[in-house]
Amino acid sequence: MLGEIREVPDTARRILAHGRAETQAVADAIRSFSPRWVTLAARGTSDHAATYAQYLVETHLGLPVALAKPSVTTVYGRELTWAGGLVIGISQSGQSPDIVAVVRSAREAGALTVAITNDEASPLAEVAAHVLPCHAGPELAVPATKTYVAQLVVVAGLVAAIAEDDRLARGLTELPESLDLALDRALRWVETDGAITVEALAVASRALLVSRGYNLATVLELGLKLKETVGLFAEAYSIADFAHGPRALAGPDVPVIAIRPDGPMGERVDATLASIAGDAPEAVVIGGGEVEGRRRALSLPLPLPEALTPPAFILPGQVLVEATARRLGVSPDAPEGLRKVTRTR
Amino acid sequence: MLGEIREVPDTARRILAHGRAETQAVADAIRSFSPRWVTLAARGTSDHAATYAQYLVETHLGLPVALAKPSVTTVYGRELTWAGGLVIGISQSGQSPDIVAVVRSAREAGALTVAITNDEASPLAEVAAHVLPCHAGPELAVPATKTYVAQLVVVAGLVAAIAEDDRLARGLTELPESLDLALDRALRWVETDGAITVEALAVASRALLVSRGYNLATVLELGLKLKETVGLFAEAYSIADFAHGPRALAGPDVPVIAIRPDGPMGERVDATLASIAGDAPEAVVIGGGEVEGRRRALSLPLPLPEALTPPAFILPGQVLVEATARRLGVSPDAPEGLRKVTRTR
Repeated sequence: MLGEIREVPDTARRILAHGRAETQAVADAIRSFSPRWVTLAARGTSDHAATYAQYLVETHLGLPVALAKPSVTTVYGRELTWAGGLVIGISQSGQSPDIVAVVRSAREAGALTVAITNDEASPLAEVAAHVLPCHAGPELAVPATKTYVAQLVVVAGLVAAIAEDDRLARGLTELPESLDLALDRALRWVETDGAITVEALAVASRALLVSRGYNLATVLELGLKLKETVGLFAEAYSIADFAHGPRALAGPDVPVIAIRPDGPMGERVDATLASIAGDAPEAVVIGGGEVEGRRRALSLPLPLPEALTPPAFILPGQVLVEATARRLGVSPDAPEGLRKVTRTR
Repeated sequence: MLGEIREVPDTARRILAHGRAETQAVADAIRSFSPRWVTLAARGTSDHAATYAQYLVETHLGLPVALAKPSVTTVYGRELTWAGGLVIGISQSGQSPDIVAVVRSAREAGALTVAITNDEASPLAEVAAHVLPCHAGPELAVPATKTYVAQLVVVAGLVAAIAEDDRLARGLTELPESLDLALDRALRWVETDGAITVEALAVASRALLVSRGYNLATVLELGLKLKETVGLFAEAYSIADFAHGPRALAGPDVPVIAIRPDGPMGERVDATLASIAGDAPEAVVIGGGEVEGRRRALSLPLPLPEALTPPAFILPGQVLVEATARRLGVSPDAPEGLRKVTRTR
């Protein structure tokens, strides 16, 4: 798992270099199709890449984005009025029958379909009209790490190309170096100041993870990694949803991790942390330059717009999960009871 | 809280009687607008009514359904291309500024907008073109119970009217009696066979809740109630997502509750429960006639199509939460740190 996390920056370099032409071709097809809305179909880790895509598409293309409920297709057998929509299936393996079924049904009904997958020969790649490969190479550890970041980078490259957004495009050229820096800092942090957080997660049975916006995907993904790798009930919330009930979960034995981008969203995250300060241990804050010098914080001052921080901000989380698994003496590569390829119908 | 749960069947009666004309008028407006897709905006408990609405609209109207990310509007300030869509805001109080902002923005941009709320004088009701009231009367307990069921019934009535679906319409006429029966059985169960489940939830610090399809909303809502009322880390999953990682959370001290409709979906729930049988305590199964005679099951043999079981299947959950709070000596009506009206921006 650690070896695969270390491959993240080079994976991003490969996507930005080798994927440029294919991304532009798919972006051109989407612009000419001019979809009225976008539906994303994904599960597990890929569903968090879809959450990121929902924010990025809505904020940069202005199109409403839906996340598919595959059982509508596979269990209830209802065909949707897909015509006029863009339907993107996201799956590392490209194998999950329910995701394949949604994309097939959408294509047959007139949607423009795209597969984002790490296997260009997979059933998902076969049923979609267009394929964007993740260029991540084989991933052997059961918890997906480099392929998750690869999915985010593919999504960001696609949205930048469709929107012809210079800020995103420039940010993407900075991204591999930012990932190098984030990974380097994260690896040092987890052995130094971050060691106390590894210990806290190792002894905890529950944890709370909060953020909002683009980085909602980051806490959802960190939560899933903590669940599948060390069996921790790590619940991830948007800070807005948090106030609608889950706030009651804060307690002295429940570690809190926040992902805090710089700017207005960061200030909102701070306000939520202040609201639970009396009930919870001091939060661990992973963020941008604005958290520099705070106790219990990892600052990653990267030259990226907030929209491009999720690929970098997940890295300390992945490193943290891997270190916690080692600290507990469990294999991060092959958690009990889980398989790499999950075939849900 | 218990008093408000007891009002559920009569609330459904009021909606079906007094709400008929207004529902038909909104359904006519939607049919004549002929939306290309539907976006739902909601938070907390209302978000679970939106999850139910997503399944019901997709399976009965065939339209793709998106759940809004309000921060796109309120934090990132991006207007979506709402024209041609139907945008429904769901909120008990109708007060949450972010939900109001989404509906206002959508209406200004040409969407057809509807508010489903328990307060016809609320800001949400004011900004939407159409209002469907919940007819639930004042709700005083912080954890929403009767207003949640009311939102489900309003949604079902609206979809039945738009789809002109006889099966749903007939099912709705049976619904109040089914709710009476479900509530009656649930209240008896929680004092008899279900007492062991109250005890298990009272001593647990974590729990797993599973279902899929229409009743995904039911486990999400039961999970939120357990969080806000007794502080339990109760994680709710679709059985399909469950296989993609969270399955690792099953353990001997983690109670499992499944919502199991009759039919093919029920068989899938059984398969998931069988897959964790070695790692988890025997699951408590709340379901239809097919679970009659099973150990640890509450059977509610109701004359309802699966699509209309969520208003009934949540009742044992609400009763269970209320009994667990009393067993723990905490007030179910006013959990610490939470407010009835949550104003997120």
